[in-house]
Amino acid sequence: MATAEFWYEFASTYSYPAALRVGALAEERGVSLVWRPFLLGPIFASQGWRDSPFNLYPAKGRYMWRDVARTCDAMGVPFKRPEPFPQPSLLAARLALALQGEERADFSRQVYMAEFGRGLPIADRAMLASLLAECGIDPAAALERAESDANKALLKAECARAAEIGIVGAPSIVAGDGEVFWGNDRLGQALDWAA
Amino acid sequence: MATAEFWYEFASTYSYPAALRVGALAEERGVSLVWRPFLLGPIFASQGWRDSPFNLYPAKGRYMWRDVARTCDAMGVPFKRPEPFPQPSLLAARLALALQGEERADFSRQVYMAEFGRGLPIADRAMLASLLAECGIDPAAALERAESDANKALLKAECARAAEIGIVGAPSIVAGDGEVFWGNDRLGQALDWAA
Repeated sequence: MATAEFWYEFASTYSYPAALRVGALAEERGVSLVWRPFLLGPIFASQGWRDSPFNLYPAKGRYMWRDVARTCDAMGVPFKRPEPFPQPSLLAARLALALQGEERADFSRQVYMAEFGRGLPIADRAMLASLLAECGIDPAAALERAESDANKALLKAECARAAEIGIVGAPSIVAGDGEVFWGNDRLGQALDWAA
Repeated sequence: MATAEFWYEFASTYSYPAALRVGALAEERGVSLVWRPFLLGPIFASQGWRDSPFNLYPAKGRYMWRDVARTCDAMGVPFKRPEPFPQPSLLAARLALALQGEERADFSRQVYMAEFGRGLPIADRAMLASLLAECGIDPAAALERAESDANKALLKAECARAAEIGIVGAPSIVAGDGEVFWGNDRLGQALDWAA
């Protein structure tokens, strides 16, 4: 079966519409999708950036906010800018990584909808616990697994892997043959390639 | 009639496939298209960049070269990386701006095909003169108009205008109502909006 990886960062605006679309796009093409949460911070830091490029370069930021709002509008999904931006995404990423399969995908979509659909703070443990519960996942157990040393180390390894395979932004799709595609705009093309 | 502006920079890799596609996409939608050559250098400089971000951030550069090659391959057009990159695009931009209507569009496509289809140096006067001649344009007269003080000042004003309306990269489409769309990926969406 054709496979692809969906690499996403919870602080990434364009990963929000991508996360809502990617499952159906993969299914239409018969592509088996692995959700891979990671952090862009280490990749940005290696480029000398200590903040989101959308904050460092205000003209790009202004364009991005308008463009994401337009993209969500065209999809018919709500969009609310969270403050501050970017949201600290470490705990959400650890939680997603500690879950498997459909639970990971479900929880990840819930995080994006809370963050960019309702503007909620995704570093808030209680908010994340309520999202876990909505997904039918035991919050206490998931938080404990998320914050285990093994899971923390795994997330670090995932970030290193992302840099190694040439990921420069989120969302990215990596096709089964290693081809990397970057951007919410490229989901269809990437999954066609994977198929 | 619906209108849109196609803002392009001759040194921009993604402007190459865009320049080859945009005319037909606009025509399909009944959108009247104005070609607006400009320079990204002043916009990059205002962000503190003295070189292309694809050179400043090598991981982004590696991704871009692979992605552009893949894009050209899918379109069935040749792709050859020019050296050095970015090519000095000032003279080509002045020439394009000194031409009008279809002559501007024809010459611009010829420049892109020479630069990224055949890897030719677009700062070379003789090469540009031969492209002008291929378009049925008198090279000497066009070069004289291109290098007039009025045309030089006009190009500066175009670059200032690009920054003012929020253009952050090339290619960009500006719809008749002022909406800005950035990227070769966005031509269809932008022209749908304009239509």
